[in-house]
Amino acid sequence: MRSLPSPAMPQLLLPSTFRHLCLLPLSDPPLCKFNATPKFLRESRKSSFFTVRNCSSIRVKSSSEIRKARAVSQPDDKLRALRELFSKPGVGIDAYIIPSQDAHQSEFIAECYMRRTYISGFTGSAGTAVVTKDKAALWTDGRYFLQAEKQLGSNWILMRAGNPGVPSTGEWLNDVLAPGGRVGIDPFLFTSDAAEEIKDVISKKNHELFYLSNINLVDEIWKESRPKPPNKPVRVHDLKYAGLDVAAKLSSLRSELASAGSSAIIISMLDEIAWLLNLRGSEVPHSPVMYAYLIVEIDRAKLFIDHSKVTEEVSDHLKKAGVELRQYDSILSEIESLAAKGASLWLDTSSVNAAIVNTYKAACDKYYHIQGTKQKPRTDGSSENLNGPTAVLKFCPVSLAKAIKNESELEGMRNCHLRDAAALAEFWEWLEKEISKDRALTEVEVSDKLLEFRSKQAGFLDTSFETISASGANGAVIHYKPEPESCSIVDANKLFLLDSGAQYVDGTTDITRTVHFGKPTARERECFTRVLQGHIALDLSVFPENTPGFVLDAFARSFLWKAGLDYRHGTGHGVGAALNVHEGPQSISYRYGNLTSLQEGMVVSNEPGYYEDYSFGIRIENLLYVRVMETPNRYGGIQYLGFEKLTFVPIQIKLVDLSLLSAAEVDWLNSYHSQVWEKVSPLLDGSARQWLWNNTRPVVLDKI
Amino acid sequence: MRSLPSPAMPQLLLPSTFRHLCLLPLSDPPLCKFNATPKFLRESRKSSFFTVRNCSSIRVKSSSEIRKARAVSQPDDKLRALRELFSKPGVGIDAYIIPSQDAHQSEFIAECYMRRTYISGFTGSAGTAVVTKDKAALWTDGRYFLQAEKQLGSNWILMRAGNPGVPSTGEWLNDVLAPGGRVGIDPFLFTSDAAEEIKDVISKKNHELFYLSNINLVDEIWKESRPKPPNKPVRVHDLKYAGLDVAAKLSSLRSELASAGSSAIIISMLDEIAWLLNLRGSEVPHSPVMYAYLIVEIDRAKLFIDHSKVTEEVSDHLKKAGVELRQYDSILSEIESLAAKGASLWLDTSSVNAAIVNTYKAACDKYYHIQGTKQKPRTDGSSENLNGPTAVLKFCPVSLAKAIKNESELEGMRNCHLRDAAALAEFWEWLEKEISKDRALTEVEVSDKLLEFRSKQAGFLDTSFETISASGANGAVIHYKPEPESCSIVDANKLFLLDSGAQYVDGTTDITRTVHFGKPTARERECFTRVLQGHIALDLSVFPENTPGFVLDAFARSFLWKAGLDYRHGTGHGVGAALNVHEGPQSISYRYGNLTSLQEGMVVSNEPGYYEDYSFGIRIENLLYVRVMETPNRYGGIQYLGFEKLTFVPIQIKLVDLSLLSAAEVDWLNSYHSQVWEKVSPLLDGSARQWLWNNTRPVVLDKI
Repeated sequence: MRSLPSPAMPQLLLPSTFRHLCLLPLSDPPLCKFNATPKFLRESRKSSFFTVRNCSSIRVKSSSEIRKARAVSQPDDKLRALRELFSKPGVGIDAYIIPSQDAHQSEFIAECYMRRTYISGFTGSAGTAVVTKDKAALWTDGRYFLQAEKQLGSNWILMRAGNPGVPSTGEWLNDVLAPGGRVGIDPFLFTSDAAEEIKDVISKKNHELFYLSNINLVDEIWKESRPKPPNKPVRVHDLKYAGLDVAAKLSSLRSELASAGSSAIIISMLDEIAWLLNLRGSEVPHSPVMYAYLIVEIDRAKLFIDHSKVTEEVSDHLKKAGVELRQYDSILSEIESLAAKGASLWLDTSSVNAAIVNTYKAACDKYYHIQGTKQKPRTDGSSENLNGPTAVLKFCPVSLAKAIKNESELEGMRNCHLRDAAALAEFWEWLEKEISKDRALTEVEVSDKLLEFRSKQAGFLDTSFETISASGANGAVIHYKPEPESCSIVDANKLFLLDSGAQYVDGTTDITRTVHFGKPTARERECFTRVLQGHIALDLSVFPENTPGFVLDAFARSFLWKAGLDYRHGTGHGVGAALNVHEGPQSISYRYGNLTSLQEGMVVSNEPGYYEDYSFGIRIENLLYVRVMETPNRYGGIQYLGFEKLTFVPIQIKLVDLSLLSAAEVDWLNSYHSQVWEKVSPLLDGSARQWLWNNTRPVVLDKI
Repeated sequence: MRSLPSPAMPQLLLPSTFRHLCLLPLSDPPLCKFNATPKFLRESRKSSFFTVRNCSSIRVKSSSEIRKARAVSQPDDKLRALRELFSKPGVGIDAYIIPSQDAHQSEFIAECYMRRTYISGFTGSAGTAVVTKDKAALWTDGRYFLQAEKQLGSNWILMRAGNPGVPSTGEWLNDVLAPGGRVGIDPFLFTSDAAEEIKDVISKKNHELFYLSNINLVDEIWKESRPKPPNKPVRVHDLKYAGLDVAAKLSSLRSELASAGSSAIIISMLDEIAWLLNLRGSEVPHSPVMYAYLIVEIDRAKLFIDHSKVTEEVSDHLKKAGVELRQYDSILSEIESLAAKGASLWLDTSSVNAAIVNTYKAACDKYYHIQGTKQKPRTDGSSENLNGPTAVLKFCPVSLAKAIKNESELEGMRNCHLRDAAALAEFWEWLEKEISKDRALTEVEVSDKLLEFRSKQAGFLDTSFETISASGANGAVIHYKPEPESCSIVDANKLFLLDSGAQYVDGTTDITRTVHFGKPTARERECFTRVLQGHIALDLSVFPENTPGFVLDAFARSFLWKAGLDYRHGTGHGVGAALNVHEGPQSISYRYGNLTSLQEGMVVSNEPGYYEDYSFGIRIENLLYVRVMETPNRYGGIQYLGFEKLTFVPIQIKLVDLSLLSAAEVDWLNSYHSQVWEKVSPLLDGSARQWLWNNTRPVVLDKI
């Protein structure tokens, strides 16, 4: 008996009537846990990639700045004001949970929705604040412990999530509240699944989860200083880029509604709405989306949005597609009407907020109460028409439809990637020249210059995420974000990691290159080469239909593993077409829970890395799209899939230890560089063109 | 909207009180389904490997033989006799389910337990018979459709499991029985999980699952012609092979009982009992086990076995370890006593049969009824001592402990593999010589000769499974079993696949080699080479601790995938040390449900293949054990693991297209053959030694 069963092996739970059976809890979260939340799904929407970029730097302000910030933010006053609201009529709560999210589970959110930051002073992207009548605690993960320590006022307890013995928010509430307490939340800011999970936990101490739909307590105390909700005009995403008109997209969606036996669907993810309606916005940084909800019924569709954002062009565009306009704030009353008229609503409880789900539930209850009849829940998944509203709980089909790009979308992605590559060639030529002149450039100056080059490209709109411009040891901080006042000088004698991307009118880019301006060490070259070998192995992989992305993840790690090295993030995330730089449902990751198979037309990143703490970071990232391969056989009568590259920017040969490469890997490198030259050189002239030429010359392996 | 969400994405189920929610069923079995049966676990015990070998040939008897067989077996009489028993007092059922299993979920079972074969005439390894008052149906899978068609009498309906529209046994019973029926089973022949699953399904039509613990209806009609239960003497497995004495193993197990808060555990898997008690048997072919149950309590242990099998040596051995003897048949009364005295029993409901679990449940109910108190089920997994019996439902910890071999077990495995390799060298030398002399040898003759060579090796006991000796197209039948009367001649001009293994006193072997005696086609060589490349890639793989086997599966397929090829079985199964040739819990497979990580000391097979229907089959199989690798780094402070080979038999170079191999792959081949020569040549002389020399010479790649 040398070891306990692997913790990954779930213990057995019996459904039977065994009265005396001890149902032991699972020591690890199971892969899929149906009783409340399919956790992996939420992970796939917010994977490690999402946290890599959507976060502030751990470089914190100086002590004097912190003292100043604390004086300004007056956390005690805020907490006092918040607690006063606890006993307000209609509130009556013992605790209030303030999450980071907006009402749409967006990766990048508008400032007016950054309530957790406002109340706690902690600016990290991930964190949950919980305030009771006498305590205030903030949960965040290991990336933010240092930052939170410095930013939180003395009244706050820092909960180091993931550390042994640290309770979840629900468990902590069970500890600190007297049994039978009322825990308030703004139900717009929790997915239904997340709210149900908390409800389950706190019910053990008979606490009630209380939905405060009509009032956000933080907004109440934020008052006039709270920024206005964004209100930028929406634009039509041209059909030549979208490839499919709104009517066609709605028609497909309606077929899915019909076969699922639902008569309406609520869509709350902003990128899904933008994709479905061929609209784009500019209300949050990096994501070309607008705040809205969408309800699609069998015979009509309604967009819930502030009308002031809707230009005449957009209004015409929507009218043509049969999409009506409603005010953003009227979403809950519409949900009530739907239930009242007996509509069976498709709800993806992993993305739709608890306010909506709860409203529909209450309205259904009301419907049956009025009808004096109890609806027998369907269990067979059939589409038979039932009399009365029935929730259809399934993942939103728009997520997958959006992930599978059509030819126009791919064409836009290919085109914008070439312009992006031209901007990058100009940038790298400039940077190498400056560094060779011993110019002291900060990481932020370099990042700004890159933005300047990109801005000159046709159709440029925005960066697609905050640029990671990291010299030396900063490169080992996977979520590093340089700040003007504190960032480093780009060191000619250290590795420089640059992860950046752009939003263009026709597509979205995301690329990482790691370079050295001087003479890299043997260690740096070996690590770079192993990362590159993983990158090549994934790029060249061929796999049968119905293969989930995680099956390929090990290809990207195997060369590192052989040396006892690894990296602590996924290998690939989905990328939107002129939409969010991170999208699901597919991913290529060591997280085995995401069973979504890679399908023709999906775009994924290929970005293995290696990070040596306090020393350097390496990442090599291209975007790829999935395509059918012309294999000489098709065993099983199925298709075999592979990847086509979108990104065409040289990989620095100086960092490659050619002696580690196989002949096939050298061929890959030479073939890639030859394509880079062919595709990008026509967009360049002068010194940038010369730089591209110099950096795309084939390497020759010495024969032994 | 180009596609529906991937079917692998489970639909959402809410645990809440939503009364009107439509809970759609999962279209695919979920990865882990807690409400009845963790399916993957049962899969990991009976993986695709298990069905590859444990089955009869699809080569069926000739029509005349079938007619004869039918006349002899008189299926109608059997069915009539069985149905008469339905209305017997104390029975009173409307249907009876007869599965293939024995009471211990064994892979190879004694003839007296082959009740499904007896009642139906169908001899395949996998199948379930269901008999109602007017119908009889047999379920089997695609491997056996043809065989079942021929073997089943005209009164039987063949249910082609897995074909679209074919109901499960439970669904079929719901269709054919009038509501409120009684479905009888012998609860010894179903795991508790399996019985609960059927119970769930048939409860939809208010059918009751009725446990007939005291009578097996097939045995009743089988009567005198039923073979006697096996009764072979048990022997002690020498400590020099076992490595750890029984007291030490029991002590570890008892620590696990204590931390799980249980006071006793029932073990019913025969190999787990054999391993734990350092005993071996010879009651079923290929598996050195004996029929028994074992109950380990904190301060005592009881082996339930027919005493006539227990020699004096075994009796002493058990006494020394504090293991008492009980009669095999007294298991249920012992379970009742345990509950009556308040013991909390650890039950692995995925392996322990329903008779035992149900008996414990009933006895617990009785306990609390007598005590007049209801036991509150524990939900915190704590080990606090409760008053009263409580079932602890967890996977049996012996499975993992047995899978992780100690140094003595590995030593035995290494040693027996060298003797096995010597036998194989003698065999291949003989076979090549015979074929070169144009001798017409059948597949069975060749297999018999191999047995002859193995039998001469020290410590040989048995084959470890039925030898797959397959010439040409027979090799494409993955579960091919040659029969003397119908098998093919080994064709000098076709590929010959030989998958075989042996039980030795010190270990268990399992090896596949594919060879050609003449000139292989370019197609055969390409396919062989791609299989070999996959074999090499897995053999050379290095991976971090806590990596489940399925992560490595793609390494073995990637070279085939690049050509649009694949194989429809797993890549590696666990192997016992002088125990079952197939064991869990680990596997290397495309079945993503088995999360057991590969751990130091585990033995696995590495056996990619490729099968071209009606043409040829290729498989290359070595056994490996997992070991810690001396990597230059240990990123994350963890260990990196890899494999060490146990099998040392040449791979036929003639079949390798060297032009496809990388330099590293050629190095692997040469290094392997050099080790084969070093390790095995001392055990050989004469022509076999010469054969080994000829077949282990290094190959040299032509430089281009």
